[in-house]
Amino acid sequence: MTARRIADSSVEMTEILLPQHANALGTAFGGTIMSWIDICGAICAQRHCGRIAVTAYVDDLEFLAPIRVGDIVQLHARMNQAFGSSMEVEVEVKRERAGEAHLARCAVARLTFVNVGPDGRPAPVPALVLETDEARLRAKGADERRAQRLAHRKRAVD
Amino acid sequence: MTARRIADSSVEMTEILLPQHANALGTAFGGTIMSWIDICGAICAQRHCGRIAVTAYVDDLEFLAPIRVGDIVQLHARMNQAFGSSMEVEVEVKRERAGEAHLARCAVARLTFVNVGPDGRPAPVPALVLETDEARLRAKGADERRAQRLAHRKRAVD
Amino acid sequence: MTARRIADSSVEMTEILLPQHANALGTAFGGTIMSWIDICGAICAQRHCGRIAVTAYVDDLEFLAPIRVGDIVQLHARMNQAFGSSMEVEVEVKRERAGEAHLARCAVARLTFVNVGPDGRPAPVPALVLETDEARLRAKGADERRAQRLAHRKRAVD
Amino acid sequence: MTARRIADSSVEMTEILLPQHANALGTAFGGTIMSWIDICGAICAQRHCGRIAVTAYVDDLEFLAPIRVGDIVQLHARMNQAFGSSMEVEVEVKRERAGEAHLARCAVARLTFVNVGPDGRPAPVPALVLETDEARLRAKGADERRAQRLAHRKRAVD
Amino acid sequence: MTARRIADSSVEMTEILLPQHANALGTAFGGTIMSWIDICGAICAQRHCGRIAVTAYVDDLEFLAPIRVGDIVQLHARMNQAFGSSMEVEVEVKRERAGEAHLARCAVARLTFVNVGPDGRPAPVPALVLETDEARLRAKGADERRAQRLAHRKRAVD
Amino acid sequence: MTARRIADSSVEMTEILLPQHANALGTAFGGTIMSWIDICGAICAQRHCGRIAVTAYVDDLEFLAPIRVGDIVQLHARMNQAFGSSMEVEVEVKRERAGEAHLARCAVARLTFVNVGPDGRPAPVPALVLETDEARLRAKGADERRAQRLAHRKRAVD
Repeated sequence: MTARRIADSSVEMTEILLPQHANALGTAFGGTIMSWIDICGAICAQRHCGRIAVTAYVDDLEFLAPIRVGDIVQLHARMNQAFGSSMEVEVEVKRERAGEAHLARCAVARLTFVNVGPDGRPAPVPALVLETDEARLRAKGADERRAQRLAHRKRAVD
Repeated sequence: MTARRIADSSVEMTEILLPQHANALGTAFGGTIMSWIDICGAICAQRHCGRIAVTAYVDDLEFLAPIRVGDIVQLHARMNQAFGSSMEVEVEVKRERAGEAHLARCAVARLTFVNVGPDGRPAPVPALVLETDEARLRAKGADERRAQRLAHRKRAVD
Repeated sequence: MTARRIADSSVEMTEILLPQHANALGTAFGGTIMSWIDICGAICAQRHCGRIAVTAYVDDLEFLAPIRVGDIVQLHARMNQAFGSSMEVEVEVKRERAGEAHLARCAVARLTFVNVGPDGRPAPVPALVLETDEARLRAKGADERRAQRLAHRKRAVD
Repeated sequence: MTARRIADSSVEMTEILLPQHANALGTAFGGTIMSWIDICGAICAQRHCGRIAVTAYVDDLEFLAPIRVGDIVQLHARMNQAFGSSMEVEVEVKRERAGEAHLARCAVARLTFVNVGPDGRPAPVPALVLETDEARLRAKGADERRAQRLAHRKRAVD
Repeated sequence: MTARRIADSSVEMTEILLPQHANALGTAFGGTIMSWIDICGAICAQRHCGRIAVTAYVDDLEFLAPIRVGDIVQLHARMNQAFGSSMEVEVEVKRERAGEAHLARCAVARLTFVNVGPDGRPAPVPALVLETDEARLRAKGADERRAQRLAHRKRAVD
Repeated sequence: MTARRIADSSVEMTEILLPQHANALGTAFGGTIMSWIDICGAICAQRHCGRIAVTAYVDDLEFLAPIRVGDIVQLHARMNQAFGSSMEVEVEVKRERAGEAHLARCAVARLTFVNVGPDGRPAPVPALVLETDEARLRAKGADERRAQRLAHRKRAVD
């Protein structure tokens, strides 16, 4: 299994916020944005491991600014780190609004996906090539979050 | 604004997993479960503060066991803590499967919702009455998570 | 097959009315509420008989008060009676609206579901334990409605 | 307000059963068919009274034969009777299946819709012209069902 | 394989435009109307060839007048011509609006569907009986469009 | 109104084909792909003119290869030409399938969108900067298609 680069699996996804995606206030219903984040992240993980990947964990999904009906919504996903059979993906959500000169950052999240093999069990994923200092920093953050999770689970069991 | 009790806002939501909710493997698509978690949590927050509440933060959403087409899905939401104008809600997802004697815990998440006033700005929420040791322990956990988030944001700005 | 109690299969389902569920007047589209009633009733029947149950009959579905975008919607389903291979379930729909002190009853319906066996044919269902006078009264009503339906069909054929 | 004929408001609606409309058995999910019945009936009522009509009552919705993914679904709605501000509509559902010489009748229902005026209150509807013995028979049935419902409500109140 | 007549496969489909079908302007979202046109045309093709037909080509889909939330939408599909294993279908979309005396033509399109056999390959379709001058004129137009498409593809390959 | 470049409005959209998007054969339902093409093209037009644009015309939408449940779907939209108040956009659809070394081109379409001003009437759009021979060739094709459409309408009226 050859290691893969971040650019090989990065995803750009664009949507437009329709009334069917809104809540009673005319802004994006939280579940719509979560669904889009999950799809965008899952495509990134599937591109990295070459097979359908299932969501295992959502860490620190933060909503930063509202999205209104009629706004264009950009989602970007990129691999942060590959573990044995799982992958941490970061997804960022931005809005384009008529009359606004700059994009507004609306949400950001980190998700962990697991590669599921044909037998339904976790299967190994390719390593991630870390080419820049920024990439190494993100991977280090992902390593720490994973260590924390495993320590937390161990405590819960002990 | 009178303080409100946990039981006043707790939510039970039941669904059945249909093919329209599944991924290519015949199990629940992650975004479907996230949408249901968001709705269930938002109803809990709306019951506590008496107005539509918007999702601000999702912390540690963990998928523990798969849900298949035909499974009954139970979601339970309860308040963990009320802050100035926001609320931490915990949502748990279980499945009932024909032929299984016990419920399986499939996902758990903590979400923070903000009470939005008629002027579109955060508005104060009632305090939460903490009547048991378990409730006080959960509220303490929510306080710590909030302190961490605020410290983290301060670091990012400094 | 052991008889089962009403509490073993009762269902509580909670939703929030989003713009995607509304008609051109901003109130609940009838088909949305019917779908929710059908899901809620089907879960109740599936809990009672332990297998996927299909809708056979809807009797006296009555809409009593409108539901608006932003309202919380409660659905409750409970078994009325078990017949050979079918079950009568009653579903009640209530709304919670910000600023209203009391729940408003919005719809009520009785549905009959059939237990479908692995061979695709109707299969026997457990009996229903009737523990209170109210339960026996409801079961009697269900018996009468079923007798009327069978008589009506017989007339149509004769 | 001129009386209107049955043919003026009759509706033909055709659909194809896609996987998104199915339950775990690969046949039509009950709620899908109910939604289609409600839409078909609501269009008929809207054609008769010239304004958006809301569902008030569903009487004797009966499922007669299953519909599978890939089947073509026909729905037909026709006015049975017009009352002061409400209308009884009958909807019939048939399936066309590849390799079957004849249509199969899959469901039938009677629904009552109310004409809602600009002030949100029930508004008068045109009378229905009854030109054949069959039409008069159907209208008589609708009259009897309505009388029964009103008597039933009166009993519940007394 | 017996030739089939136009009336044997013609389709009438009726919908009502709900908020879930609208864009941010409160009129029909283009993709909703395209989906309905595709379903209506696919049913026509499936009726003609007796099996599920897949969309191969959309030619000259033109939007002529807007459809608003609350409008009733009529779609009509009819066979224009049958080729070896494909069929050209014409679909017309009209709106009925409260207070308008006449139907407004809102969209028209021509689609080509292919009959897919059990082996997943194109399979022959019945010929179309052309009984009127108008039908022969439409079939001639379809023949010319098909010849143009084939010539265009040949040029692209040469 | 400053002229805008093609790169300023180009769109990349990524989706994954879920069971809710499929037909009875387990491949993409035509209407799903048409909806995605319409959204992708509408975002491109909205980016070019800075306001919500409505679909006016779909020209030569061709399906070239099937998309299966589980495939990743890429859509790319780019401006071909800007006219007075309308824009021609080209959308291309590709699939990524596990185990296939290369992307497969699945559909291609040209759509015309109209810029709708605040008064609901067509409003002028910025000119398109044509920087390469390929861009000028595409714009020329768009000019010819528009001339043909106008001539065709004139013939229909004369």
